[in-house]
Amino acid sequence: MLIIMKQSKTLSLGEIAEFLGGELRGDPARSIHAINTLQDAGPGEISFLANPAYAKYLSQTKASAVLVRPAEAEMCASDAIILDNPYLGYAKLSRLFEREPSQASGIHASAVVSPQAKVAESAVIGPGVVIAPGAVVGENARLLANVYVGEDSVIGDDCCLHPNVTLYAGVTLGRRVIVHSGAVIGADGFGFANDAGRWERIAQLGGVVIGDDVVIGACTTIDRGALDNTVIEEGVILDNQIQIAHNVRIGAHTAIAACTGISGSTRIGRYCVIAGAVGIAGHLEIVDKVQITGMTMVTNSIREPGLYSSGVPVEPNAKWRKNAARFRQLDELARRIRRLEKGSSSSN
Amino acid sequence: MLIIMKQSKTLSLGEIAEFLGGELRGDPARSIHAINTLQDAGPGEISFLANPAYAKYLSQTKASAVLVRPAEAEMCASDAIILDNPYLGYAKLSRLFEREPSQASGIHASAVVSPQAKVAESAVIGPGVVIAPGAVVGENARLLANVYVGEDSVIGDDCCLHPNVTLYAGVTLGRRVIVHSGAVIGADGFGFANDAGRWERIAQLGGVVIGDDVVIGACTTIDRGALDNTVIEEGVILDNQIQIAHNVRIGAHTAIAACTGISGSTRIGRYCVIAGAVGIAGHLEIVDKVQITGMTMVTNSIREPGLYSSGVPVEPNAKWRKNAARFRQLDELARRIRRLEKGSSSSN
Amino acid sequence: MLIIMKQSKTLSLGEIAEFLGGELRGDPARSIHAINTLQDAGPGEISFLANPAYAKYLSQTKASAVLVRPAEAEMCASDAIILDNPYLGYAKLSRLFEREPSQASGIHASAVVSPQAKVAESAVIGPGVVIAPGAVVGENARLLANVYVGEDSVIGDDCCLHPNVTLYAGVTLGRRVIVHSGAVIGADGFGFANDAGRWERIAQLGGVVIGDDVVIGACTTIDRGALDNTVIEEGVILDNQIQIAHNVRIGAHTAIAACTGISGSTRIGRYCVIAGAVGIAGHLEIVDKVQITGMTMVTNSIREPGLYSSGVPVEPNAKWRKNAARFRQLDELARRIRRLEKGSSSSN
Repeated sequence: MLIIMKQSKTLSLGEIAEFLGGELRGDPARSIHAINTLQDAGPGEISFLANPAYAKYLSQTKASAVLVRPAEAEMCASDAIILDNPYLGYAKLSRLFEREPSQASGIHASAVVSPQAKVAESAVIGPGVVIAPGAVVGENARLLANVYVGEDSVIGDDCCLHPNVTLYAGVTLGRRVIVHSGAVIGADGFGFANDAGRWERIAQLGGVVIGDDVVIGACTTIDRGALDNTVIEEGVILDNQIQIAHNVRIGAHTAIAACTGISGSTRIGRYCVIAGAVGIAGHLEIVDKVQITGMTMVTNSIREPGLYSSGVPVEPNAKWRKNAARFRQLDELARRIRRLEKGSSSSN
Repeated sequence: MLIIMKQSKTLSLGEIAEFLGGELRGDPARSIHAINTLQDAGPGEISFLANPAYAKYLSQTKASAVLVRPAEAEMCASDAIILDNPYLGYAKLSRLFEREPSQASGIHASAVVSPQAKVAESAVIGPGVVIAPGAVVGENARLLANVYVGEDSVIGDDCCLHPNVTLYAGVTLGRRVIVHSGAVIGADGFGFANDAGRWERIAQLGGVVIGDDVVIGACTTIDRGALDNTVIEEGVILDNQIQIAHNVRIGAHTAIAACTGISGSTRIGRYCVIAGAVGIAGHLEIVDKVQITGMTMVTNSIREPGLYSSGVPVEPNAKWRKNAARFRQLDELARRIRRLEKGSSSSN
Repeated sequence: MLIIMKQSKTLSLGEIAEFLGGELRGDPARSIHAINTLQDAGPGEISFLANPAYAKYLSQTKASAVLVRPAEAEMCASDAIILDNPYLGYAKLSRLFEREPSQASGIHASAVVSPQAKVAESAVIGPGVVIAPGAVVGENARLLANVYVGEDSVIGDDCCLHPNVTLYAGVTLGRRVIVHSGAVIGADGFGFANDAGRWERIAQLGGVVIGDDVVIGACTTIDRGALDNTVIEEGVILDNQIQIAHNVRIGAHTAIAACTGISGSTRIGRYCVIAGAVGIAGHLEIVDKVQITGMTMVTNSIREPGLYSSGVPVEPNAKWRKNAARFRQLDELARRIRRLEKGSSSSN
């Protein structure tokens, strides 16, 4: 049933060890054509040990080689490449086995590129792509099928925009940015003034600035700023279906998991890790190196690094119904405890 | 104001009774051109009674016929077709009245189909569709406008992909799969290794395998696996804006409502029903026949079938503020109760 | 680093005062080419004071003019336009500085417009747009790149559909509706009948009706009705990534923030304000002028206007773990309090 992607490249163990900068214990000529888990790998495949819980598989693996830490090399049934951080080695190696794009170069005949746009000769522009006047596309950038790039938007060198990505006008991407399908960057921020019950739209005149090496997941939306820009700093990684409102700033190298929403004008620090389905209110400040667990509701600024949470854990419905009903009495219960304490101290 | 979709087909009551395998009490020649609710139906329309709360409308309905259970046939003001499960009868009948697609067959002139792709002659390929090398499209499959199908992806017979669907490379759909607009299948899983604060991308080398008869809602995202595949088994129904991370497996005939997110490597059983906006953490196991209510936070495996919940119910803000503040004292309150109990037992 | 969108228009202060209906204190010939914040504005830019917390900047601003309330005009270092509601003035003014679309008129050569569709001569149809038979596009409507419009859908005068929007068949938009990229309107509602564990799809035969002046955010999904329509009344504003299920009705001038989900057949009143990531169960009724804070779980109807909430606020993980564990004992704790109260009253 498995239809692992074809990994067409073949490398020798010697080449891999040199690429990763690790010590090889084994045959440098051995040929490797894929990566796989310790349990599933077979001959011609390389694996890695990142989580110590899987060390038990080291002695039985059928992999031709394994990336391991120094202390684990002895336990390894196969050839080994010794690294301080095998998981990082796996990350780097994985990209060598990634499928090459099938379209080599050039602008597809069905793309609609404005004569007032500037597209590097080395860029790849897929079928159905539309590039508006004033847009700039950098060297080796790849815009896959049906991507839209608005007026005066700038796409840095080596970016990859997957099919059906939309960039509105005035969006700037740094270099090596990856944007997955369905993502929308630069749509209007949600800004309206109320006029006796009716909503008057506020034109969103700012743009979006995305730093180098940012990754943006499928169907993630990043709104343009009202007057200033919305800013995602370099090295930020964003999962799928994230919502980032106007004038948010996300600090460099922060990671955000799927389905999280960040309200307008909030600033998030560098090196934060925010799990999935977190909701963050507007106009807050979250400092560097804050970690937030999944589904947390953040309604105030966080001024100290550390791990933060909220929410109520799952339980059988019958029990939960009783407990949730009591939540509505919580303040009253606390007052009753206070009263008991007073009575108990006075009776003593 | 209502602009009910044109239901252009006309059927006789006799044909409908035969199609549904029900006993007809009435005129088999009566002509039916639409389905409607008991309250709103008029002459020429057929209705159904599924929820007993609506039985009171049976005696007054202006429908020409009603699908009913045996015990309800007597109360019916109109002709009746008697079924054990009228709601199921309605489901089957509804599809007969569904609008036919307007494009009959063939590949639209504006579609871009790789010569290395294999498209069945009976397939319908809409305007702006792009099909990459190595892709396979089965018999009677319908790919509507601007759909993208990546390298080596396989679309089974009788699938329907609505406009603006994106399938990355290496995605396999079974037969009769329906994918709604904006859905993205096979984007990269969110896999990165941390290198002294920077994120190194892990190439996602697995694929996605979708079983027969699966339905995938609008803007739902299903990521490709890291090494193995992400798997959605046959008969699963997924609503809109669901996020399914890499290497998740969802068991056959499970239903998931909108806005739910499932983190990486979690396995969900068969015949589960998961309501909307549920968040499920990664690397968990949820057995068959588990039901989970809306907005529940699932952070541990569920090993017994049954109904599960979490969350806090809505209340007026002024009351909620007091109760929510007490939540932060809950452990302390529990200790104070314990202390009171000790004091009270010692004072007795 | 800022790349504020080019605001190419230049207006005189006199023109602006007349447009906004405000009293000008200053030089009517002064030329204004952009809007900016009080802190950042420079010569040739106009600003506004909406939030009193920023009044301190009035005396130092380098803006050429500021929109202010009567009482604040004295404090203003620059020319002033006096308005009762400067924020509303900013909203109206902002639209004058909004970028003009670059495509002037007509149907792009790469668009695929059915000969059975009816498109107004003044409409703008972008590259890759597909319009199905029976669809109607009104005067001055703009359909940007790769938009899809299904059979018999109707787009009112002056609508703007941003790139990659999908309208299924049988969707009606009023006048001046704005739909942002990635939005999907009219996909099938999530309706299935269970047949011994298998799901039988119920064809969704209703449509979607959207009133005048509605705004729909990026990647928002609005499902078609099962038999009746899903209805969004005039003046409703919807942020990004909202999910609206089949047969929902949303009352006029209601505002809903991003990531909120509304389940099937729920009716929401007029002039409501619903914050982000709220979840609302199905078949509920919410009256006019209800406000709901972010991430609230709504599982029952709300029959009185007012502000409503639920959820648990963020705290450091170590504290949260203890408190969340006690939530599961909440009913038991309440019983223990009751017992203590009984004991204490009997011992008195």
